[in-house]
Amino acid sequence: MEYIQQNFNVNFSYGVFFSSNLFDPANTCLATFLESKAEDAYVKKLLVILDGGVAAHHPQLTQQISRYFEQVRGFQLAPEIITIPGGEGVKNDLPLLFSLVDAIDKYGIDRHSYVIGVGGGSLLDLVGFAAAISHRGVKHIRIPTTVLSQNDSGVGVKNGVNYKGKKNFLGSFAPPAAVFNDPVFLTTLDSRDWRSGMVEAVKVALIKDAAFFNRIEADSVALTAGDMAAMHYLIYRCAELHVQHIGGAGDPFESGSSRPLDFGHWSAHKLEQLTNFELRHGEAVSIGIAVDSVYSYLLGWLSESDMQRILTVLKNMQLPVWHPLLEKQNGQPSPVVAGLEEFREHLGGRLTISLLREVGKGEEVHEMDLDLLYKAVEICKNNQ
Amino acid sequence: MEYIQQNFNVNFSYGVFFSSNLFDPANTCLATFLESKAEDAYVKKLLVILDGGVAAHHPQLTQQISRYFEQVRGFQLAPEIITIPGGEGVKNDLPLLFSLVDAIDKYGIDRHSYVIGVGGGSLLDLVGFAAAISHRGVKHIRIPTTVLSQNDSGVGVKNGVNYKGKKNFLGSFAPPAAVFNDPVFLTTLDSRDWRSGMVEAVKVALIKDAAFFNRIEADSVALTAGDMAAMHYLIYRCAELHVQHIGGAGDPFESGSSRPLDFGHWSAHKLEQLTNFELRHGEAVSIGIAVDSVYSYLLGWLSESDMQRILTVLKNMQLPVWHPLLEKQNGQPSPVVAGLEEFREHLGGRLTISLLREVGKGEEVHEMDLDLLYKAVEICKNNQ
Ligand SMILES: NC(=O)c1ccc[n+]([C@@H]2O[C@H](COP(=O)([O-])OP(=O)(O)OC[C@H]3O[C@@H](n4cnc5c(N)ncnc54)[C@H](O)[C@@H]3O)[C@@H](O)[C@H]2O)c1
Ligand SMILES: NC(=O)c1ccc[n+]([C@@H]2O[C@H](COP(=O)([O-])OP(=O)(O)OC[C@H]3O[C@@H](n4cnc5c(N)ncnc54)[C@H](O)[C@@H]3O)[C@@H](O)[C@H]2O)c1
Ligand SMILES: [Zn+2]
Ligand SMILES: [Zn+2]
Repeated sequence: MEYIQQNFNVNFSYGVFFSSNLFDPANTCLATFLESKAEDAYVKKLLVILDGGVAAHHPQLTQQISRYFEQVRGFQLAPEIITIPGGEGVKNDLPLLFSLVDAIDKYGIDRHSYVIGVGGGSLLDLVGFAAAISHRGVKHIRIPTTVLSQNDSGVGVKNGVNYKGKKNFLGSFAPPAAVFNDPVFLTTLDSRDWRSGMVEAVKVALIKDAAFFNRIEADSVALTAGDMAAMHYLIYRCAELHVQHIGGAGDPFESGSSRPLDFGHWSAHKLEQLTNFELRHGEAVSIGIAVDSVYSYLLGWLSESDMQRILTVLKNMQLPVWHPLLEKQNGQPSPVVAGLEEFREHLGGRLTISLLREVGKGEEVHEMDLDLLYKAVEICKNNQ
Repeated sequence: MEYIQQNFNVNFSYGVFFSSNLFDPANTCLATFLESKAEDAYVKKLLVILDGGVAAHHPQLTQQISRYFEQVRGFQLAPEIITIPGGEGVKNDLPLLFSLVDAIDKYGIDRHSYVIGVGGGSLLDLVGFAAAISHRGVKHIRIPTTVLSQNDSGVGVKNGVNYKGKKNFLGSFAPPAAVFNDPVFLTTLDSRDWRSGMVEAVKVALIKDAAFFNRIEADSVALTAGDMAAMHYLIYRCAELHVQHIGGAGDPFESGSSRPLDFGHWSAHKLEQLTNFELRHGEAVSIGIAVDSVYSYLLGWLSESDMQRILTVLKNMQLPVWHPLLEKQNGQPSPVVAGLEEFREHLGGRLTISLLREVGKGEEVHEMDLDLLYKAVEICKNNQ
């Protein structure tokens, strides 16, 4: 049998920059990045897609953005800044996805130009996917404007939209060209989004960094009350841990079944879907972390006091730790628990669930004892 | 300014296997590959998408496929083999794309399972894209059944569909898990597909391998008449040159503007679109090669005799070397020539066109002299 072997590596590299007032004409962070990519032979184009929730709270923003890019050598902004709604709804809207693809076509965004998403994780997931499938991938820059997107989704390599009610069923791995985190955006966040975004930091601290968890625990009341310095540290360290895991754990595009950053997520994804996305992603993950932490305790892994510390941190953040859909419904299995198989399919391969061996140390299991799981749900209910 | 740097490499690796009668129970090539990927902990699934043009000529095939996979340890075939039409039309059909996504969902194809496309380049481009966007990329295996897909498209890393008449506007880079080239499929090819598929070999020989071009030239009449041994060599060497270029030229996912394998393609893509895909891809590329070879001659690069050799090889293959749409239309620019800008946008960045410095040696230019181009068109017309 004749045979030809293909084998190559592709390098992916991008910076996550932290800088306040990005579109202030005096702030050169973004301009410097772009100008380092300019080429004499032709002008590159920029297409900005803006989150309507951000635009509503920052009425001068579109004008600031237009002015800012006028100054950037070698780049030309498309004649229109496209403002679309924010929030999970945009990930349930295929026509909206295609309208972004149409804009990429209409404004001649080629593979050396940039699509720039400014908004929450939902908008960034949508924009990243539209960019990834147009011309087999145009470059995109992320400017995350929520706690969650600055500390997690915006700094990672994934995008996606929901399909037929299935969370992130359509999507791809497409690292951004760069990420710019501007804390000023966070000041206008709704309290629910401010608080729920912190959950990803709780998550990554629990599986990777006990000292970080201690710090979050100590800060949890101040964070919830809006302490910006504490929030800055939380976002920075959380982003750093995510970046390190993605780049350092050997499987950035998730070809294996191991997915430690999905701690607390198997039930969360299903809860989001079953509540029609009325639960925020972070709220659903809060519940997921609570259940899987208590389950880890019931397995004999986590001490009771550590389990209680985790629940207390989540409650200090005024986040939910239980949901009625986790319970059996009239003797039938909980629809969330029934979603375990769907989670396995989404990840692929063998069921792989991250649990906590101790605070700061995740460990994977390949099965869940359903009796123990319902017992964990019960404990969460009693600890609300 | 604080800053976190992400940097990682992703390895991509796959084999291109040549083997006759793939689905003969005695042929272990495909089974051995799959079984090497089996895992004890769970059964992986297989979903086969079959080209209707292939199925029509191989009426036992679906049954053979079903039987074949029954024997493969660790894998389970989906209850349905999905047969869809073949040909470019499937790339103009977004509902069909989503019906494949739906099948991936319905049959629980996870990221450790495989979608297997059996068919021409059009079907493989569609199937590869459906797989690439489902669950952020499920694995796919390609079983190309045309000359063109066995020697070029099927062994590469790209997929895609047309969008609003724009060739391959939607797509991605998604290397296959493996490729299996079975020459027996080629025996039922329509003469147009048999002949036009050889053009990609002419193309890659012209830009990279003079000895290969000499061989194709010597074989051109025999190839056209159906000589299977000559065809086997043509496909093997052409596939090998494509694989080597993709893996070895340092830019497998085409982040730069250089695209030597697109020699002859700038006009071809536009001609396909303008003729409503009545021209086969290979026929359009034949015209594109003719025009760009003559243009290379007019530039003083290629000798007149080499230019004539190229036209003769294409004509020996009974392929077109000219099209009326290349000419000015009532004093207006040719719509093909007007498509140069669209080609630039698709590739991105600076206009980059491969021409021939000599037979076996491509070289890039960044502008085309339109007067010279129309003169080249005229010469092609007179040499039909
Ligand atoms: N790609 C990934 O790796 C990844 C990882 C985690 C989460 N996610 C996804 O991220 C999404 C959640 O993102 P999110 O939590 O950022 O919420 P979101 O994007 O859904 O936004 C929530 C609300 O906040 C508004 N908003 C955004 N920025 C604002 C600002 N600065 N001021 C005022 N309002 C603002 C939005 O308009 C929206 O109404 C989910 O779809 C989740 O699945 C993706
Ligand atoms: N992805 C890439 O890198 C890449 C590269 C080059 C070309 N392409 C694409 O490939 C497509 C062309 O593919 P193609 O030339 O293979 O043609 P095709 O897939 O369009 O098929 C042509 C016809 O042959 C039929 N057919 C296929 N196999 C057969 C067989 N064994 N016996 C009988 N009939 C058979 C099909 O049903 C169809 O009617 C174009 O869309 C082109 O853009 C992609
Ligand atoms: Zn999350
Ligand atoms: Zn081609």
